[in-house]
Amino acid sequence: MSSATSPVPQQPVTIFDTTLRDGEQAPGISLDTKEKLEIAEQLARLRVDVIEAGFPITSQGDYEAVKAIAESVGTEPGGPVIAALARCHPDDITRAADALKGAARKRIHVFLSTSEIHRQHLLHGASEDDIVAQAVDGVKRALTYTDDVEFSPQDATRTDVDFLKRIVDAAVEAGATTVNIPDTVGYALPADFGALIGDLVRRVGDEVAISVHCHNDLGLAVANSIEAVRNGARQVEVAVNGIGERAGNCSLEEVVMALATRGDILQRPTRVQTREIARTSRLVSALTGYPVQYNKAVVGRNAFAHESGIHQHGVIQERLTYEIMRAEDVGVSGSTIVLGKHSGRHAFAKQLAEMGYALDDKEITRAFARFKEIADRKVELSDADLHAIVADEVYAVEEDAYELVSLQVSGGTAVAPTATVRVRRVADDSVIDESAMGDGMVDAACGAIRRAVARLAAAAGDPAEESLRAATLVSFNVAAVTGGIDALGDVTVQVDVGNGQRFTGRGVSTDIVEASARAFVNALNKSVRLRRGAQSSPVQTP
Amino acid sequence: MSSATSPVPQQPVTIFDTTLRDGEQAPGISLDTKEKLEIAEQLARLRVDVIEAGFPITSQGDYEAVKAIAESVGTEPGGPVIAALARCHPDDITRAADALKGAARKRIHVFLSTSEIHRQHLLHGASEDDIVAQAVDGVKRALTYTDDVEFSPQDATRTDVDFLKRIVDAAVEAGATTVNIPDTVGYALPADFGALIGDLVRRVGDEVAISVHCHNDLGLAVANSIEAVRNGARQVEVAVNGIGERAGNCSLEEVVMALATRGDILQRPTRVQTREIARTSRLVSALTGYPVQYNKAVVGRNAFAHESGIHQHGVIQERLTYEIMRAEDVGVSGSTIVLGKHSGRHAFAKQLAEMGYALDDKEITRAFARFKEIADRKVELSDADLHAIVADEVYAVEEDAYELVSLQVSGGTAVAPTATVRVRRVADDSVIDESAMGDGMVDAACGAIRRAVARLAAAAGDPAEESLRAATLVSFNVAAVTGGIDALGDVTVQVDVGNGQRFTGRGVSTDIVEASARAFVNALNKSVRLRRGAQSSPVQTP
Repeated sequence: MSSATSPVPQQPVTIFDTTLRDGEQAPGISLDTKEKLEIAEQLARLRVDVIEAGFPITSQGDYEAVKAIAESVGTEPGGPVIAALARCHPDDITRAADALKGAARKRIHVFLSTSEIHRQHLLHGASEDDIVAQAVDGVKRALTYTDDVEFSPQDATRTDVDFLKRIVDAAVEAGATTVNIPDTVGYALPADFGALIGDLVRRVGDEVAISVHCHNDLGLAVANSIEAVRNGARQVEVAVNGIGERAGNCSLEEVVMALATRGDILQRPTRVQTREIARTSRLVSALTGYPVQYNKAVVGRNAFAHESGIHQHGVIQERLTYEIMRAEDVGVSGSTIVLGKHSGRHAFAKQLAEMGYALDDKEITRAFARFKEIADRKVELSDADLHAIVADEVYAVEEDAYELVSLQVSGGTAVAPTATVRVRRVADDSVIDESAMGDGMVDAACGAIRRAVARLAAAAGDPAEESLRAATLVSFNVAAVTGGIDALGDVTVQVDVGNGQRFTGRGVSTDIVEASARAFVNALNKSVRLRRGAQSSPVQTP
Repeated sequence: MSSATSPVPQQPVTIFDTTLRDGEQAPGISLDTKEKLEIAEQLARLRVDVIEAGFPITSQGDYEAVKAIAESVGTEPGGPVIAALARCHPDDITRAADALKGAARKRIHVFLSTSEIHRQHLLHGASEDDIVAQAVDGVKRALTYTDDVEFSPQDATRTDVDFLKRIVDAAVEAGATTVNIPDTVGYALPADFGALIGDLVRRVGDEVAISVHCHNDLGLAVANSIEAVRNGARQVEVAVNGIGERAGNCSLEEVVMALATRGDILQRPTRVQTREIARTSRLVSALTGYPVQYNKAVVGRNAFAHESGIHQHGVIQERLTYEIMRAEDVGVSGSTIVLGKHSGRHAFAKQLAEMGYALDDKEITRAFARFKEIADRKVELSDADLHAIVADEVYAVEEDAYELVSLQVSGGTAVAPTATVRVRRVADDSVIDESAMGDGMVDAACGAIRRAVARLAAAAGDPAEESLRAATLVSFNVAAVTGGIDALGDVTVQVDVGNGQRFTGRGVSTDIVEASARAFVNALNKSVRLRRGAQSSPVQTP
């Protein structure tokens, strides 16, 4: 635990963010292109080195998102490398290369399962020779599109070590510039993983970067990544808030702050602007609908809060008695009140620009109208409130198919919860009123909305949209954006529209039932937009 | 990563659970004795080795909770050791010993800050000699009450290593049977922490157990604990769901499942009944009001869920392609539907007994009445729903001071949210109706409740309770217990009743506004009960 200074300049670790690829694979997350673009822009402000923007072969939506990010964030001078995932199949690689075309700096990331259990069950028992041949082909093909190619042997930590070394050698020989070692199932222990990485680093030499990609099934993803860096890994793959399959990926914020806080030992900084961490975390939480638990390291609401008498006394005496990081350094400055009901459009637009949003006039107008409506009911709005409003009003959906014009609800302990809604179908400007009872007022409001949408769709002769009559709410999450009884309720719902298709919707209001109703309509609109979009450009999946 | 079997019998690691002590120090958690007892009973079913039940000197409530746990869970044959925390002050130790008197196996845990920064700011610059003398006195005094004494040098990982060794030697010499090394600020890195623990283990020899207590500020608490065990630590201190100050303590579930899943390498099992893990996590989340994030390892709702096409295919092919633990092994069996509206009282009582609740007739009657009321609105109830009902109806508060008799609310986009409530003051059976408008319906309901409570208190001539007119909602959290649109909403609120005093309340209903109103009343009742209780037995604080 001693501190030391290195005589040689410290080499930064490459931060490869996979929030938009592996993070987005978490159950129930379905970001549209606009939302992904917003996250990518924030990741660029955070100064991650590489953004893995998607897995283009898997859907038209993924392809378009990667393309949009490559053409915008990917063209910023000094901006991040944009990466896309591909299996070693030729079609995957072509599709990835096509999506990345617009980026100034692009990387194709090819992967292939190498553990025996994966080869047996996912690759029809392919032999080791077959796997090596496929990997080499994949790397070589990717190199025809870019000289920045990453190779990952999937489930590396459960792969026979000799075979792992063989395939790493083959990928390097074929020209891969980064070889990533994924602990796909979160199985590794820090000391062993560090030793394995040390071996591979010595094996590949200075020309090739060894990367690590750790999952958190046993709560060890950050530790495994840190031990890998201590043993020479030059890249870590991370996701904001640690989202991803199952228990998720290595948390960006934890690994970055561990490298920063323990630079005395680790001596491997990052280029990340840590003051953007809190904002990035909030944005990803808001757009994915994944809450961050109170006791989450670095970005949880308690990360810098103290309760016990002894600790509080200590903190007052000297902050460092119990804090090893400063809240300011990760951009947690409390929820600062920035605007009130008397704030004008100019101040509002200026504030949003300072918060990093690049909105056009039409978007500002929509957000401002909503801001005034909410400010009328709530005295002061913080920047967190503004984030919520922008996410709800501007990024939630590009164009609404159905609009919730008005809502009226009543309920209580003795009366059946009842809701009446007015819904407008934007395409033909038709309007209808409907009502429903429910188990609770949220249930009643969703019921009335479903009826209204189905009747409007029926009148317009659209049986697919009429089927939204059967849409069901499968999950429900409320984040009170600001404290206090006048909290702005920020509701995220997941709606099943049939055939197992699920959409996430989000709504903001000072009233929680209204926020829920808005979130429900938002999810229905997303499903409609995807279907209408799909009709003009069919989804290509392998 | 190779697997090996040990010829010698594997020595289990002692699991020391501090959910009720360090966990409960997390901001906004305020468990009453009944709730702590319920958690302690579940920890005993989980078979942790030691339950740290509280810090008796700090409040009358803490003292009583430790006493109640010592006298119940602490007397079960083969049950856990009950521990209580104390500074090295004589009064602290006497109070701890007094609270523990009823336990069959008891431990006094004395601690003292040893790092220079803590000594300077918390201990008025006490010298090293002073600190050593206090530690020795504390250990010796504790030994007059029990032969099981644990000593912790607080902030050990930022303590000068030579001084740390000196104080560890002194504590061992004085007779401490366990020496715990706390990484109080979550500062340690796995490899260094493991090496430090290895040194201390060799130093103290076989007679004394080295323990570790890791905080998660950099996301490394589990890894640090695991590396400590690999280096000979015989005890790990943990909290359920990783709750605690700031980013919390080492997660019980993560460290236990890492030891179980990687027994091939670690060879240090625990005595924990892992199938009780999911239930324990749910209970602690429900009673503390601390949600568990979806991507939390082991106990998050996604821990065993898979999304991506590739992964789903793999899972269907062979579960182990992506899962290293079985959901059944941690007691996650999906939310099984257990009862419906036609279920009788007998079936209901039997189900609760099977779920581990030991309720008396009166409590069953209350819970059953609530069950029928909810079952009338909801077709089927799962065991998670039943947990919520029991927590709300039986454990929420022992005796209500104020009862929400009825509630009626209305609101919407065009009308001001309005609520009318009928509230009863139980002590004198007085009833009043009140109404209020608000920013949203939850706000309106809370406003009406505050007015009603204040008027009832004023009529009864109780100015302290009348001051609840100013109580404010400071946080709000909704967990939809079961999926589906007929979800049972489970709301936890934190209410500030003035002077910075905060109480957590919980309410369950199919209607979210009703659940919120119930939670608000529950929090007010807790504050009243604490105050009324305090009048008869004054709180002793150092």
